Amino acid sequence: MKQLSLGIIGLGVVGSSVAKILKENQTLIAARAGCAIHVKKGAVKDLSKSREIFDFPITNDVNEILDDPEIDIVVELTGGVEAPFEIAKKALRNSKALVTANKAMLAYHRYTLQQIAGDLPIGFEASVAGGIPIIKALRDGLGANHILNIRGIINGTCNYILTKMKDFGVEFDEVLKEAQKLGYAEADPSFDIGGFDAAHKLLILASIAYGIDARPNDILIEGITQITQEDIAFAKEFGYHLKLLGIAKKDGDFIELRVHPTFLPKDALLGKVDGVMNAISVVGDYVGETLYYGAGAGGEATASAVISDIIEIARTKSSPMLGFKTTSGVLKLKPIEAITSAYYLRILVLDKPGVLAQIAKIFGEVGISIDTFLQRNDKHHSTLLLSTHTCTEADIKCAIDRISTLEVVKAPPAMIRIEK
Amino acid sequence: MKQLSLGIIGLGVVGSSVAKILKENQTLIAARAGCAIHVKKGAVKDLSKSREIFDFPITNDVNEILDDPEIDIVVELTGGVEAPFEIAKKALRNSKALVTANKAMLAYHRYTLQQIAGDLPIGFEASVAGGIPIIKALRDGLGANHILNIRGIINGTCNYILTKMKDFGVEFDEVLKEAQKLGYAEADPSFDIGGFDAAHKLLILASIAYGIDARPNDILIEGITQITQEDIAFAKEFGYHLKLLGIAKKDGDFIELRVHPTFLPKDALLGKVDGVMNAISVVGDYVGETLYYGAGAGGEATASAVISDIIEIARTKSSPMLGFKTTSGVLKLKPIEAITSAYYLRILVLDKPGVLAQIAKIFGEVGISIDTFLQRNDKHHSTLLLSTHTCTEADIKCAIDRISTLEVVKAPPAMIRIEK
Repeated sequence: MKQLSLGIIGLGVVGSSVAKILKENQTLIAARAGCAIHVKKGAVKDLSKSREIFDFPITNDVNEILDDPEIDIVVELTGGVEAPFEIAKKALRNSKALVTANKAMLAYHRYTLQQIAGDLPIGFEASVAGGIPIIKALRDGLGANHILNIRGIINGTCNYILTKMKDFGVEFDEVLKEAQKLGYAEADPSFDIGGFDAAHKLLILASIAYGIDARPNDILIEGITQITQEDIAFAKEFGYHLKLLGIAKKDGDFIELRVHPTFLPKDALLGKVDGVMNAISVVGDYVGETLYYGAGAGGEATASAVISDIIEIARTKSSPMLGFKTTSGVLKLKPIEAITSAYYLRILVLDKPGVLAQIAKIFGEVGISIDTFLQRNDKHHSTLLLSTHTCTEADIKCAIDRISTLEVVKAPPAMIRIEK
Repeated sequence: MKQLSLGIIGLGVVGSSVAKILKENQTLIAARAGCAIHVKKGAVKDLSKSREIFDFPITNDVNEILDDPEIDIVVELTGGVEAPFEIAKKALRNSKALVTANKAMLAYHRYTLQQIAGDLPIGFEASVAGGIPIIKALRDGLGANHILNIRGIINGTCNYILTKMKDFGVEFDEVLKEAQKLGYAEADPSFDIGGFDAAHKLLILASIAYGIDARPNDILIEGITQITQEDIAFAKEFGYHLKLLGIAKKDGDFIELRVHPTFLPKDALLGKVDGVMNAISVVGDYVGETLYYGAGAGGEATASAVISDIIEIARTKSSPMLGFKTTSGVLKLKPIEAITSAYYLRILVLDKPGVLAQIAKIFGEVGISIDTFLQRNDKHHSTLLLSTHTCTEADIKCAIDRISTLEVVKAPPAMIRIEK
């Protein structure tokens, strides 16, 4: 039986899980891969840091791996964007296959890497939604279909926070603190709760589905920091689940890419995915809707995805990186203002006559029609909660700007998109 | 760009959808496959039957396809077991790759086909759960894991019937008639409602996960014909969803394989999958639970899966049939009597004192402990609904046999397994 040699760069939570599973499930993995998988060397930044004992040598010089002619696959599991990009480029230039879990690097540099790789395989199943094999599903399982849309709960921190807000009626700040205590949110949570992590993953999914080369700053990204219990109450009242979604949609030759809190109809399976779990709904033109669910993070689940790429490379040595190459350039990123949706607005107003009339007048003039409407009063203020029929981002923003200038409106309205 | 030639045998609902999608999504499919896909010829049983017009020649002699040296892939989409088996064998012996949607043939002959195939690829994504890429997920995406269990809603007819029984409170026979009218159930529905269709699919999934060679008559198969509104009421009362599941479970070196109506805890995502939709939950030792959801039947969804196999073969020419070959024989099929579960019993009894005591005495003597208990009376009879803690199939059957002989029991108890 032949053997495949790996160099693992980065031995943190994911890297050490990869080493552990390769050892524990050795026989099974060799059977599936058709050859033995051997870790020849690992690389870490700081050799003096105490860590578990591995049964392969460890260096702090990545070039010992990148320049080793006996190493077939470089498994890149570090953090950051530019440093791993240098590692990835050198690995490919030295004719090694690359497996990476680094979504941030891919969000910026995937097309450059694909170009350098040529026919060398790059595996990145672990970069989106941890252990869920969504990359392979999109690239292989649904290959016969034009992808009409992708809607994903692809950030476990946000889903945990929104679930707790719904189940226990507590406000965002309080749940965030609890999530940090439990390790479900980072000490600096802004990358997750701001929607940026989900945006990185969305860009990777959109590349496979559409071959579209966009960067994080090209797309609409909104986080969950503005969500209140009033929004949750509105969702319950009108039959929605509130989720942070990454959404990619095909509209003719245009692709919409956006990350934002979203109301989903309560009978949609995606809306029922709670806690830290991830799920991605994909609609193909012939297969209809399919959905993929599982742990989106965690060392072992992510390592499971890393190893699935290693097995695939062992078996075929020919996985195309983004699934296909020729339709890139045909599809265009849709400008944010042209994206359409239904919208929900929460507007804090003075409790006096004529307020609703002023607001309704603005909607009428902008050409937006109102779908549902709810008013909640307490002794201090009055809140209007309303949902609209479908209109453009440009129109809803115009309406919000105009509403914000009204004297009877006490703060700029909060807005959440509704998926139907 | 090179070209791959297909012969499609069987041009019914699935076969004609394959032809249509290959034409409609030609450019995309060629990009993903890395070459043009060309249907050289189709074969049907009866040339005189009127059908849509295809842009390839049609024959009623399958050998025109099987003996054509220019055809690379035989796409077998007929029905039955032995006739398609002959076609499949000849295709492989003539060194052609094989793609099939025929679950019944695979349930009986998959290991023979694998042996004949050697390194020739066999694609059978369409044989289980229609458009859901569950074969590839199990074989590739979760390849790093020992599969601890698989639990699948893999028969849309049964799921439709159970959903309607739950939502509208009508009995089995009535819903079945409606399902037949709507085309969700066959004129002769016994294959679906008896659990046999689900058993075929379960055997295929178990082969990929465990490399285990079992046949339909080796495993436990129960359908949904005995389910009543009382069982649905019990599920609601105690927080369960009632589903027909195909279950494969690893227990040391033993594999349990079984198809039966099952109570699932109401917070399990799998239990929330309603209507004709399919979903499969897979638990791996490192990835944890993942779940796959989508349309389990229908010409276009199934054709989507067929074409995903064609694309894979075009790209790699090396997909191993059952994922791995070496662990076959290590794992053994668990005898049905040794399988453990929690159980629900519905017992029709005379409404008189001491009945419960007699039944409880039997449970005590067999060594089964009761978990929950509910009694429902109407003017004609009294029904005991109870659930047990975990025990073996042998024990629960012994208890049921003894309960059935009691004079106060009016009919043999109905039994449903509970998954925890």
